[in-house]
Amino acid sequence: MDKHLEDYSHKRFNILTGEWVLVSPHRSKRPWQGQNEAVNNEKRPEYDETCYLCAGNTRISGDVNPKYTGTYVFTNDFAALQSDSPSFKVNDGLLQAESETGICKVICFSPDHSKSLADMDVPGITKVVNTWQKEYKEIGANDAIKYVQIFENKGAVMGCSNPHPHGQIWSQSSLPNEVSKKDATQKAYFSDKKSSLLGDYLKQELNGDRERIIFENDAFVVLIPFWAVWPFEAMIAPKNQQNSILDMTEEEAILYAEAISVLTKVYDKLFNTSFPYSSGIHQAPTDGGDNAHWHWHMSFYPPLLRSATVKKFMVGYEMFGTPQRDITAEGAAQRLRDLL
Amino acid sequence: MDKHLEDYSHKRFNILTGEWVLVSPHRSKRPWQGQNEAVNNEKRPEYDETCYLCAGNTRISGDVNPKYTGTYVFTNDFAALQSDSPSFKVNDGLLQAESETGICKVICFSPDHSKSLADMDVPGITKVVNTWQKEYKEIGANDAIKYVQIFENKGAVMGCSNPHPHGQIWSQSSLPNEVSKKDATQKAYFSDKKSSLLGDYLKQELNGDRERIIFENDAFVVLIPFWAVWPFEAMIAPKNQQNSILDMTEEEAILYAEAISVLTKVYDKLFNTSFPYSSGIHQAPTDGGDNAHWHWHMSFYPPLLRSATVKKFMVGYEMFGTPQRDITAEGAAQRLRDLL
Ligand SMILES: O=P(O)(O)O[C@H]1O[C@H](CO)[C@@H](O)[C@H](O)[C@H]1O
Ligand SMILES: O=P(O)(O)O[C@H]1O[C@H](CO)[C@@H](O)[C@H](O)[C@H]1O
Repeated sequence: MDKHLEDYSHKRFNILTGEWVLVSPHRSKRPWQGQNEAVNNEKRPEYDETCYLCAGNTRISGDVNPKYTGTYVFTNDFAALQSDSPSFKVNDGLLQAESETGICKVICFSPDHSKSLADMDVPGITKVVNTWQKEYKEIGANDAIKYVQIFENKGAVMGCSNPHPHGQIWSQSSLPNEVSKKDATQKAYFSDKKSSLLGDYLKQELNGDRERIIFENDAFVVLIPFWAVWPFEAMIAPKNQQNSILDMTEEEAILYAEAISVLTKVYDKLFNTSFPYSSGIHQAPTDGGDNAHWHWHMSFYPPLLRSATVKKFMVGYEMFGTPQRDITAEGAAQRLRDLL
Repeated sequence: MDKHLEDYSHKRFNILTGEWVLVSPHRSKRPWQGQNEAVNNEKRPEYDETCYLCAGNTRISGDVNPKYTGTYVFTNDFAALQSDSPSFKVNDGLLQAESETGICKVICFSPDHSKSLADMDVPGITKVVNTWQKEYKEIGANDAIKYVQIFENKGAVMGCSNPHPHGQIWSQSSLPNEVSKKDATQKAYFSDKKSSLLGDYLKQELNGDRERIIFENDAFVVLIPFWAVWPFEAMIAPKNQQNSILDMTEEEAILYAEAISVLTKVYDKLFNTSFPYSSGIHQAPTDGGDNAHWHWHMSFYPPLLRSATVKKFMVGYEMFGTPQRDITAEGAAQRLRDLL
């Protein structure tokens, strides 16, 4: 790799969003005198009677969770998107708005309140993967739903209000901003080169000096993308192009679960804490269109920078200018690889 | 206003960035069981001997601050951008990077450690405005600098590591992401209509039912834009088009300072706390090009949602999909107006 990238400020181009990230490699020497996050490394019980996600407990809506043993899915009691709201458009001079309908769900990953994905075994994570597949398929079959966003907020610092292992699905009647960007870049590349943009990038990484690769198995690669924004941001992607998570074989679903397991375990080791992050899957819209250009992938955006208590703040410059990072993607990958 | 916007989920279009925001008006009923922020309403002394921004104190670099009385500007001791780094380009298949040089400065707003902009008087804030003008002009005159980003991170929750009233300037050799977006939308509109996009929007707001306007004086309007993302996001903009802050008359600089004073004071009243935010000025690039389409404005992105301790988390869905808000721009403007 060009040695300049290790020493001098530069910007890197995200081929999937078409946006830049500013990298300031020397800046991690800055002493930190700002806010420290609370860490909670307390061991949780396997069952908590006050938790609204534990099996058998009553939620705020009055609904009672079944005595589930694997995963458990229900419609969000405080859904940001609803399926029964009217359709409307506002086109009033420079004020433009449109109704947005959708379905929001919560997915409990396990009945065991004490665990996170990092503590679960590969068969347990495979059940989560299979649940994502089932939901993507079912919700996506709804004509009113054009996109199914699967994500997880993990840790209080990421706005997660309940430590019980769970993720969410927000699905909606139009494409979200980030998906639209990736849809456009992948489409342009695919129609030009007849091959997958992300697939070609992964090939370049796998056949290069591999300095951003953390782990690979037969079907998946786990890496820090060249254009990563968050200090330890990582991506899991199938080596061969697949439009959505429905394209995985049963065997591949297990290999995907293995990749999630390896990454989340190494994250927890990094700062010796249950590593907070938001993760999400970007994949083909369910709009019935031609989505042959899509190559699905899962990204992890973890906020921690220096320790279990010091995070990277994406604030003034980042909000008004460009996201900025203090360590290189290569340095971050090296640190995670060393902990495997 | 269309009543639908008060009751049902919808998306609104940001005419300046070309992006959407998801609004879920009913969602603020959701009970909050997540993280609470620390509040520090402790009165600070006017001088703190351990503060590296107080007058007469020694910084980590060994430099000694002068006994300044108004504002004080110095080059950031841990600058994310440096002016002396080499110029280079990486164009290696799907890996694309470019050097980025620049100048980073810190601006102390006042020697008084105990104050924030909200506690300073209008003449004091006018000195800050005049300092921004001087710096924008001087830094922008440098041929290597194409954009001068003025911003402030206020409060520990916004990554601010020192409560001494201060802001920053990061200036650089290319246009940051957010500026590029606003450059393109304003340019397209201006070449089409021969008038300012933001100016026409402000006229529509001022001549409409004024439900998003918080305050106005002869030269400026303070409002919550129709497409605001953060719960109490606000914008200060000159009513008549000006490309940059250099276009203000002396009298207008005082009126701008008054607008900042009114907004920051009302913010502090809202949750009875020193209100955290990141603020920034978007204005004409200093690239020597034709920037007649620019209409400068200052935006405030405050994170608090429900109280001094409960903020809005822009996490999973927001990072992977679209920014989402739980209260309407109109409701937020009403609450701030009621506190004037
Ligand atoms: O420069 P500071 O105040 O030390 O740092 C703060 O503002 C910067 C610019 O928005 C951010 O990159 C940092 O993450 C934040 O902690
Ligand atoms: O739905 P939750 O977990 O209550 O809420 C969390 O995730 C949402 C989706 O990313 C965010 O909008 C909220 O700000 C966050 O607190």
